[in-house]
Amino acid sequence: MEGEPTLRLRIFDLNCWAIRYLSRRRRERVRLIGDTLRQEGFDLVLLQEVWSEQDYSDLKVKLAGCYPFSHYFRSGIIGSGLCVFSRFPILDTLLYQYSLNGYPYMLQHGDWFCGKSVGLGSGSRAGVTAPLLSLSPQLHAEYCRDKDAYLPHRLVQAWELAQFIRHTSKAADVVLLGGDLNMHPEDVGIRLLRGWTGLRDAFAEATHFEGCKNGCTLVPDNCFTDKSELLPFPLGIRIDYILYKAISSFTVKCEELRTTTGRAPGVDIPFSDHEAVMATLHIQRQGQPAGATLGTADPALADVVTEARTEVGAGLQAARRQRYSSGRMAVLALLLLLLQAAAALGTLAGLGAEQPFPKLSFCLLAFLALGVLVLATGLHLFHTMEVKMLHGTEDQMWMVLRALQERP
Amino acid sequence: MEGEPTLRLRIFDLNCWAIRYLSRRRRERVRLIGDTLRQEGFDLVLLQEVWSEQDYSDLKVKLAGCYPFSHYFRSGIIGSGLCVFSRFPILDTLLYQYSLNGYPYMLQHGDWFCGKSVGLGSGSRAGVTAPLLSLSPQLHAEYCRDKDAYLPHRLVQAWELAQFIRHTSKAADVVLLGGDLNMHPEDVGIRLLRGWTGLRDAFAEATHFEGCKNGCTLVPDNCFTDKSELLPFPLGIRIDYILYKAISSFTVKCEELRTTTGRAPGVDIPFSDHEAVMATLHIQRQGQPAGATLGTADPALADVVTEARTEVGAGLQAARRQRYSSGRMAVLALLLLLLQAAAALGTLAGLGAEQPFPKLSFCLLAFLALGVLVLATGLHLFHTMEVKMLHGTEDQMWMVLRALQERP
Repeated sequence: MEGEPTLRLRIFDLNCWAIRYLSRRRRERVRLIGDTLRQEGFDLVLLQEVWSEQDYSDLKVKLAGCYPFSHYFRSGIIGSGLCVFSRFPILDTLLYQYSLNGYPYMLQHGDWFCGKSVGLGSGSRAGVTAPLLSLSPQLHAEYCRDKDAYLPHRLVQAWELAQFIRHTSKAADVVLLGGDLNMHPEDVGIRLLRGWTGLRDAFAEATHFEGCKNGCTLVPDNCFTDKSELLPFPLGIRIDYILYKAISSFTVKCEELRTTTGRAPGVDIPFSDHEAVMATLHIQRQGQPAGATLGTADPALADVVTEARTEVGAGLQAARRQRYSSGRMAVLALLLLLLQAAAALGTLAGLGAEQPFPKLSFCLLAFLALGVLVLATGLHLFHTMEVKMLHGTEDQMWMVLRALQERP
Repeated sequence: MEGEPTLRLRIFDLNCWAIRYLSRRRRERVRLIGDTLRQEGFDLVLLQEVWSEQDYSDLKVKLAGCYPFSHYFRSGIIGSGLCVFSRFPILDTLLYQYSLNGYPYMLQHGDWFCGKSVGLGSGSRAGVTAPLLSLSPQLHAEYCRDKDAYLPHRLVQAWELAQFIRHTSKAADVVLLGGDLNMHPEDVGIRLLRGWTGLRDAFAEATHFEGCKNGCTLVPDNCFTDKSELLPFPLGIRIDYILYKAISSFTVKCEELRTTTGRAPGVDIPFSDHEAVMATLHIQRQGQPAGATLGTADPALADVVTEARTEVGAGLQAARRQRYSSGRMAVLALLLLLLQAAAALGTLAGLGAEQPFPKLSFCLLAFLALGVLVLATGLHLFHTMEVKMLHGTEDQMWMVLRALQERP
């Protein structure tokens, strides 16, 4: 960064909650987001939950002048919902889809149908020679904090996200991560992610903060939030983050962090049910390379990994139980079908004097058994895969724990 | 590598074809593979198609003495089948599952059920300070070369593999890739992979070669190969590769490449239906860093990417057609169901004088319609996801093409 001691980078992050037909006042809000982004002129915009490609295209057209570079990450059945707008060139992109993301039969939660992923865009900015890595992840939502059935899946995602960052960021100057992580700051998943990658929290590090108390991004003041969900948290919760770190010979400082406060600036509706997070970072070249600081040397890291591994282990037990019961159900349905087939064949061969059941009930029962067989087999296969992924993550965590313990 | 000018690395790569209940003489062959690996003492062993965890565990126990470090990559319903045995520590692992991998309804091909992925193990060896990256990928099989319905999927996988290597290898000293790529050396997928990553082919670069003619790894001499598949190729085909490159201040040379020749050394059966590939590499530290050579500067690269993009585009068209027809089928089934419901309600309400159909046929038809509806909806969702991934890959390729064309 010769002749330019500091690069000032303004980042905007928002979970847009733009689900076609379901999100209230979606088109109006997307227009508003576009207008604000055009006026404010950020350097980097990380958006989540832009589920409709049409919304992305509209934003792209509107923002072409001030954000000439953009990328929409496609994945899953509905999409990843992730997109990036940037004032500087996006040189390359990569999408990593989490291996676990809820259950297909939990239709009311719907996470499984979204290709929840982390999108990586690497770019370079005059001065920062090696790539600047920006990630926009979204993790599985938490629907019930007291009895969080998705915790193991979210931990697998946090772990995969951390591993993905570690492996892809080794030659980057700066790593930026902005997104809805669906985890509170003190949750094991966020401690794992931060501990294992060495990422720093812009809210905790910011010299100047302005916005909702405690940096909350899901607040009761927002007219779109579900008030009953926020009852235990009268101030709201913080689940949207901007995290960052410098890898090579750079330092990053967060000069300012802002959030919206229940409505977009100057109008009476909010951008989304989440608050937007805006950070101003100062990136400066250091005299000498800082060396690869992939993870923190925090002695508490082993404890965090152990805690996460215990939760993943509990999830593994549950998944094994579900695999077993769906398998048993499939076997029972198959037995019933075979029994019926034997009875039908027996009647056809004239062994039984008369058909003991009325034809209609017999047929209905067969179809029911067939339906249960198909469904239970599908579930069994799904839980087999779940077991594999949870087991794999547990293994990886164990490998890391061993390495951490061997480290002097 | 001070005081030790050259690191000699011996690598073994094999597609083990170890499918429980299906692969012939599996247990005998796995034992044989274990015995050979123990005797030969390679530095790094990359195995594919070890579908049974029990086989991996058996190998692990047998090889604990000479390969103290190993990892089994878990994914998908059946598994990834990938495992790595190493004489030097495996510091970290990462699994990337390809976003497309055939069709769930092509049960006879079964690729969809395997979590085909690339497993990355990074390790370090005395002298090579930064990680040594070894990958063990397996791509979708080719079942019919003349009318290869899976080509777009294999190209997406080759592209994702190349992108994964580019993004994860930036700080590695050396990248090693060994595996069954299911592509002939002149295929567009392999040209894409090599061109976009800069990986070099051990067979083409080896100073000394010993083994099947043209380095073939699927040969008619092997008693397990399907002879009819190899009819157009009397010498066999080469689809298993060891590829490598040096990233930072190292050079890699392939001293020797060997393949087995239809049977394992000293016995009368082969290790697998594939031949094993064994390479001896010399890794040497250079005087000065070579700089990041992520891709080749080959002017033909743009042509290869264009060719691949055309194929992916054709796949996208086909996927869109399938999405449309499955959607139409679902709508027709739904209409039939609604019609039946209306007729049934009409009869119940006494509108029709008499039930026009026999009850049994009426029920059977309803179940049939329901079955078609569920199946067609599932297919529609699947093809929607396929369209998303093919479209995403096409987009990424376009971004790369633009960057290649802008490059001086």
